Amino acid sequence: MASSQNPTAGLAEKAATKLAARKRFEAVFPLLVEELIEYLASEGMPREAQEWYRRNLDYNTPGGKLNRGLSVVDTVDILLCTEPGSGGKRTRELTEPEYLKAAILGWCIELLQAYFLVADDMMDRSITRRGQPCWYKVEGVAEIAINDAFMLEAAIYYLLKKHFRSEPYYGLLLELFHDVTFQTELGQLIDLITADENHVDLSKFSLEKHHLIVLYKTAFYSFYLPVALAMRMVGITDESLYKQASAILLPLGEYFQVQDDYLDAFGKPEVIGKIGTDIQDNKCSWPVNVVLLHANAEQRKALDQHYGRKNAESEQIVKDIYVAPNVNIPGKFEAYEKESYQMLTGLIDQVDESKGLKKEVFTSFLNKVYKRTV
Amino acid sequence: MASSQNPTAGLAEKAATKLAARKRFEAVFPLLVEELIEYLASEGMPREAQEWYRRNLDYNTPGGKLNRGLSVVDTVDILLCTEPGSGGKRTRELTEPEYLKAAILGWCIELLQAYFLVADDMMDRSITRRGQPCWYKVEGVAEIAINDAFMLEAAIYYLLKKHFRSEPYYGLLLELFHDVTFQTELGQLIDLITADENHVDLSKFSLEKHHLIVLYKTAFYSFYLPVALAMRMVGITDESLYKQASAILLPLGEYFQVQDDYLDAFGKPEVIGKIGTDIQDNKCSWPVNVVLLHANAEQRKALDQHYGRKNAESEQIVKDIYVAPNVNIPGKFEAYEKESYQMLTGLIDQVDESKGLKKEVFTSFLNKVYKRTV
Repeated sequence: MASSQNPTAGLAEKAATKLAARKRFEAVFPLLVEELIEYLASEGMPREAQEWYRRNLDYNTPGGKLNRGLSVVDTVDILLCTEPGSGGKRTRELTEPEYLKAAILGWCIELLQAYFLVADDMMDRSITRRGQPCWYKVEGVAEIAINDAFMLEAAIYYLLKKHFRSEPYYGLLLELFHDVTFQTELGQLIDLITADENHVDLSKFSLEKHHLIVLYKTAFYSFYLPVALAMRMVGITDESLYKQASAILLPLGEYFQVQDDYLDAFGKPEVIGKIGTDIQDNKCSWPVNVVLLHANAEQRKALDQHYGRKNAESEQIVKDIYVAPNVNIPGKFEAYEKESYQMLTGLIDQVDESKGLKKEVFTSFLNKVYKRTV
Repeated sequence: MASSQNPTAGLAEKAATKLAARKRFEAVFPLLVEELIEYLASEGMPREAQEWYRRNLDYNTPGGKLNRGLSVVDTVDILLCTEPGSGGKRTRELTEPEYLKAAILGWCIELLQAYFLVADDMMDRSITRRGQPCWYKVEGVAEIAINDAFMLEAAIYYLLKKHFRSEPYYGLLLELFHDVTFQTELGQLIDLITADENHVDLSKFSLEKHHLIVLYKTAFYSFYLPVALAMRMVGITDESLYKQASAILLPLGEYFQVQDDYLDAFGKPEVIGKIGTDIQDNKCSWPVNVVLLHANAEQRKALDQHYGRKNAESEQIVKDIYVAPNVNIPGKFEAYEKESYQMLTGLIDQVDESKGLKKEVFTSFLNKVYKRTV
């Protein structure tokens, strides 16, 4: 193929494939909205209620990066359509019904994410999300957003019932969503009571707390859930493989979030597409927890005074400490990144492909995450 | 027995039995809280998070009338421990494991109710609930209450998994909770967009809307759910019996809510234990919808001006219209009550006890509801 001789054409081709995959996935969502609205109509719900729900679904569910949802499709594809031990050599394409099922599971994660985000934005009193006002900030919505969040979650179980009820793994899908939802809410709880914007108290922070928050609030639903759903869908029943998958995906998710925290302070706004606010928002982020381990008495005093304060001068003082020679967050991050990569590749190497799981599931994740700048 | 000869002693005995039943049910809740806290501990959650969740569960779940939870226990008891066609003649007592299972299902409905109420209070900006500040009004809680509501719901699925996972009807319990949760959220949505406190518009009201709101927001989870859970637990699999149960329980729930609406306007505060606020709060309640059908032009104009206004004078003007001779809400309510009772007894009469369902399940409900003043 031309692409293998011309790296630029190869990149363009890759980008086009990625875009096409995204478009195909996005095209499934309107079908699911129709099913949900038809359900409301069948229950005799008034037109205003149908339109309200449609707007809630459309406003809050698509529009993000869709990484979680696409991961389900990608994982099902790797598990069903590549040769074991070949490093990803394709043997066939997903059938239309297979694709649709994987995409529905993917959208169920996106609905779960929408449910969390609508609520998180209210709890954090955020103003914008994905370049538009947060849902509760939209004219006429306000506190109704709480019930709207509930209804985004309800959509998950309606869709699972409609499309997976006759599958032997249906109950396991329900449990996966229940378990991971609870875990994510636990992560949100620890985060909320550890990093209260109105009462800055760095003594509540620690790397251990950060680890717990990241694991529960992000890694379970963003990294483990997509793969576990895909594994259920393709019929993997060996429970030890789910353990092995989580033993790789949870640290991978933690690594991803550490990067996110690092980029919030050190990423270039024009590259990451947003201006970091973790310092001003008193977030229990990775850099501040590392700093707390290494700061001298004077630096610690300055952190207590300036972390979590809503002004640019305080933020700059904190950032100056992040790069002070005795602290050196960029250096420590580089070391952390290297170490994580080695640890993860080591874990992935141990996957025994004869049992139905494939290394490629994890390497494709790791390659998306490693040394990302955005 | 003495009680049959002495009606006063009979009443006292009945009250004592009822109190004992309530105490026994209440005693189960702390065990469930322990299980949930142990789960958090097993996941390595910090002590503050464990204590926060315990306080959330304890503050929001018990403390109400517990009618829904107790109904599960009562229904299981009728189905397993009375003779068919005997009008409730007892043949045995529930075993301890049977009791515990029924009580756990009952507490799962109370958790569902707690989940709704914590959120409803935020959406309605209420101040107190059950004689104490609403949860979101408690010092230090505020918007965290949204995540706390989520975690009350999560408790349901944790407990169902722990206690019912090996039962053949486990999946059906999950679906019952999913379906009824969605239905209740739909009811809440119609209510929120129909009866906006900040934009009084009586043209949005109608008895048809009232019917939908009541059915979805209250009747499914308060009347159908307890009985359906009990029927699943005792092993009833004939789906036509679930249809028959809902055909009785949903109108019964509607009748109950119409009473509630009527008592809000006409009940004596010293008897019902609260001061009605539906008129001032612009609620889409039964009396106002009936009034709208019968009001003359002048009365309608006064209603548009005074309904949903936060002052006692406007409220009194509305109440005066409720009792105007051409409207006569008390007379219409009396007729409605009589008609509902006849319709419900007719439906109950059609229950064929040879199939595993019992009339007593429904008559015991109806007797609790008919002509209640509190």
